[in-house]
Amino acid sequence: MQPKQIIVTIPVKERHKAYLESKAPDARFLYTSAQNITDDELDKANIIIGNVPPKRLHSPAALEWMQLNSAGSDNYCAPGVLSPRTILTNATGAYGLAISEYMLAVSLQIQNKLFLYRDNQRNHLWKDEGEVTSIEGSTTLVIGLGDIGGSYARKMKALGSYTIGIRRTATNKPDYLDELYSMDSLDEVLPRADFIALSLPNSPATYRIINETRLRAMKKTAILINVGRGTAIDTDALVRVLNDGHLAGCAVDVTDPEPLPPDHPLWDARNMVITPHSSGSYHLPETFERIVRIAGENLEAFLAEKPMRNVVDFSTGYRKR
Amino acid sequence: MQPKQIIVTIPVKERHKAYLESKAPDARFLYTSAQNITDDELDKANIIIGNVPPKRLHSPAALEWMQLNSAGSDNYCAPGVLSPRTILTNATGAYGLAISEYMLAVSLQIQNKLFLYRDNQRNHLWKDEGEVTSIEGSTTLVIGLGDIGGSYARKMKALGSYTIGIRRTATNKPDYLDELYSMDSLDEVLPRADFIALSLPNSPATYRIINETRLRAMKKTAILINVGRGTAIDTDALVRVLNDGHLAGCAVDVTDPEPLPPDHPLWDARNMVITPHSSGSYHLPETFERIVRIAGENLEAFLAEKPMRNVVDFSTGYRKR
Repeated sequence: MQPKQIIVTIPVKERHKAYLESKAPDARFLYTSAQNITDDELDKANIIIGNVPPKRLHSPAALEWMQLNSAGSDNYCAPGVLSPRTILTNATGAYGLAISEYMLAVSLQIQNKLFLYRDNQRNHLWKDEGEVTSIEGSTTLVIGLGDIGGSYARKMKALGSYTIGIRRTATNKPDYLDELYSMDSLDEVLPRADFIALSLPNSPATYRIINETRLRAMKKTAILINVGRGTAIDTDALVRVLNDGHLAGCAVDVTDPEPLPPDHPLWDARNMVITPHSSGSYHLPETFERIVRIAGENLEAFLAEKPMRNVVDFSTGYRKR
Repeated sequence: MQPKQIIVTIPVKERHKAYLESKAPDARFLYTSAQNITDDELDKANIIIGNVPPKRLHSPAALEWMQLNSAGSDNYCAPGVLSPRTILTNATGAYGLAISEYMLAVSLQIQNKLFLYRDNQRNHLWKDEGEVTSIEGSTTLVIGLGDIGGSYARKMKALGSYTIGIRRTATNKPDYLDELYSMDSLDEVLPRADFIALSLPNSPATYRIINETRLRAMKKTAILINVGRGTAIDTDALVRVLNDGHLAGCAVDVTDPEPLPPDHPLWDARNMVITPHSSGSYHLPETFERIVRIAGENLEAFLAEKPMRNVVDFSTGYRKR
């Protein structure tokens, strides 16, 4: 059997290389970057580990498996990017820790008005901003219960919040949820929540799922958080609703459009907190370690023709179950 | 027996009045405020519920018991404020929820660089600020394990931090601590911590306990939090150390001097987060409910000559054990 040609575009260190090579002793490894890879190298690759830009891929015939370093995979599910014969796996599980701590951070930031106190500090202003609320005794609604949404729900539960989850199918309620519903029940549970957290992949079913009607159905004092894809929220409606005085605040790490143009009104919307799609990436060193572990375990499984982790269903953009 | 004259200066609602009066049906209640109370009223009071300013008190002879609405009580322990015969109780237990959530909020705010992202947002700047750290896998050192410090340690433990506590006497280690030491071990454990949280009363023993040597003994990447009294930290040393690039950041809700003057260099020290002694107060409605409950339970105990909660030892400023 011809040795597999494996291209690794994620920024591995020597110990990561040794780990990956231990999983495929007979393979040929090429370590490069998404920027530096050549078309010829791409044509010959049997396996790619890392997010080579979709526009560089034209259903490469030799490509048997592609391991993404991202949790989102919608860009790779579009027709013509990958051959239907190529196995696509994503990095679900790598980002749960970093992004759920970010979600907790912005939940508390808005609840404690720390963004207002930051503005006051910049003006050397010792000024009380009044009432706050607490996580203990609150109700948290998590929409999308992958690794990220699930990790956030677990933390909120540990801090004394009552947790409600929504996912595509309302089966197998995890211990960290008090209630679990399917997406059909969204409008019913929305008005009950103090925290509403969105961690959804980009898909036709999630496009602007939070529209103006749903924003106004939320409690006036609710806090909305979005870490999935910016397109899950109708941005113009969000600006209107916030500036009308509805919601205690909103924090997003993803926007629509993204990046947010400098003149966009969302920047200055009332009680709005914006971060530049920074909650994930490799900003937490542990995230990268987890990606390498997923890639290594999948490499071993692929070569042994055993079941792999995080195989993406091209038609839904979600993991296969 | 003469009916007790009780002055209530905290802003009670009708239901709170009904609750307190149910605990002392024979007493005479006067509801007023710390601002409006007269010297004559103070002279006749047997019981005061609320922080009447210490300078208004001159060891009032009729005063048998004073229930503070604050957790700190050092101003009331000074000679000449209260008669040694007066029982002083504080509101320890009321602030744990609000202040420990605040402490968690600023821990995550600094860790996730949300203060930098806030500044960028104000400038409509979509800019990545790089690496972050996580609570999971960190080590937290809590100095002062009253209700506030203990509640914070419990939350950090629940989020996956390894918790070390320091209190005056290292006995009866609670479950939410991995290690417990007495103050003698401070210099030994300081270099191990990623989070160092101070929740200490004002006393000669805690005055500038965090001096320049100890600040520099902390990890370069440590995050320091102070919610007790501003005097626990040498402020000038803190400014120097931060601006030298030591510490990942510092958040304080209390300062020395307090309020912080507009021209003080602490406002603009590197990675500094300042809030204006706002983490407690009655900003969380539950805090006030807890204060009323402590006062009511103590009122019942006082009249029945039973043990009361939170009796302050004038010589230490701490609760008696």
